[in-house]
Amino acid sequence: MGQAEQDREQGSAFLPKFDAAGLVTAVVTDQASGAVLMVAHMNQEAIDATIATGQATFWSRSRGQLWRKGETSGHVLNVVEIRVDCDQDALWIIADPAGPACHTGESSCFYRTLENGRLVRR
Amino acid sequence: MGQAEQDREQGSAFLPKFDAAGLVTAVVTDQASGAVLMVAHMNQEAIDATIATGQATFWSRSRGQLWRKGETSGHVLNVVEIRVDCDQDALWIIADPAGPACHTGESSCFYRTLENGRLVRR
Repeated sequence: MGQAEQDREQGSAFLPKFDAAGLVTAVVTDQASGAVLMVAHMNQEAIDATIATGQATFWSRSRGQLWRKGETSGHVLNVVEIRVDCDQDALWIIADPAGPACHTGESSCFYRTLENGRLVRR
Repeated sequence: MGQAEQDREQGSAFLPKFDAAGLVTAVVTDQASGAVLMVAHMNQEAIDATIATGQATFWSRSRGQLWRKGETSGHVLNVVEIRVDCDQDALWIIADPAGPACHTGESSCFYRTLENGRLVRR
């Protein structure tokens, strides 16, 4: 492991490791229930906006623009804590959701479980 | 939204939506603590192996090969439940870890929190 990787894993400097598209993966969980609410992506601008506003903001790959979750629905994700993984290519956002996290109206995007090869609603 | 996307969101068919590299994002949480342990990627082969063996298996992008977590350390992730998100491009694996999930020896890869621009160990 090179020095840069070692610093990234063990140091106190926040050095997100963006992929070729300039993104890191962001996993959001509900502080109260512990459930994984959604998985999305952030670029540097989205990270900065999330920190500045205290509301989870992502980079929409499909729309090619910054996307503050809940900007139209009001179902924002109020950030409680931001954690980063060992190699800093993923963030774990612990949040207090103002409403359903999924655009389908489900509290979490992960509303189905795989059982015997089929998806079953929880 | 097209019919295919609608079926993918509302149906009971497991139809992972792989990215250009043939991967979906997999988030692993600890059944007991609820903590996010790690984020990695799976291709179809990794998904099949995970289901067949009951132990989380990923596609290592850096090594370009299938990687059963814990295959050398013994710290396997015993799968309790597999959930899938609305558009089926992410999986949430609820697991019972046999040991520390992170190669650093930490129970979770997310062992640091962002505080005032710096990373602090939890």
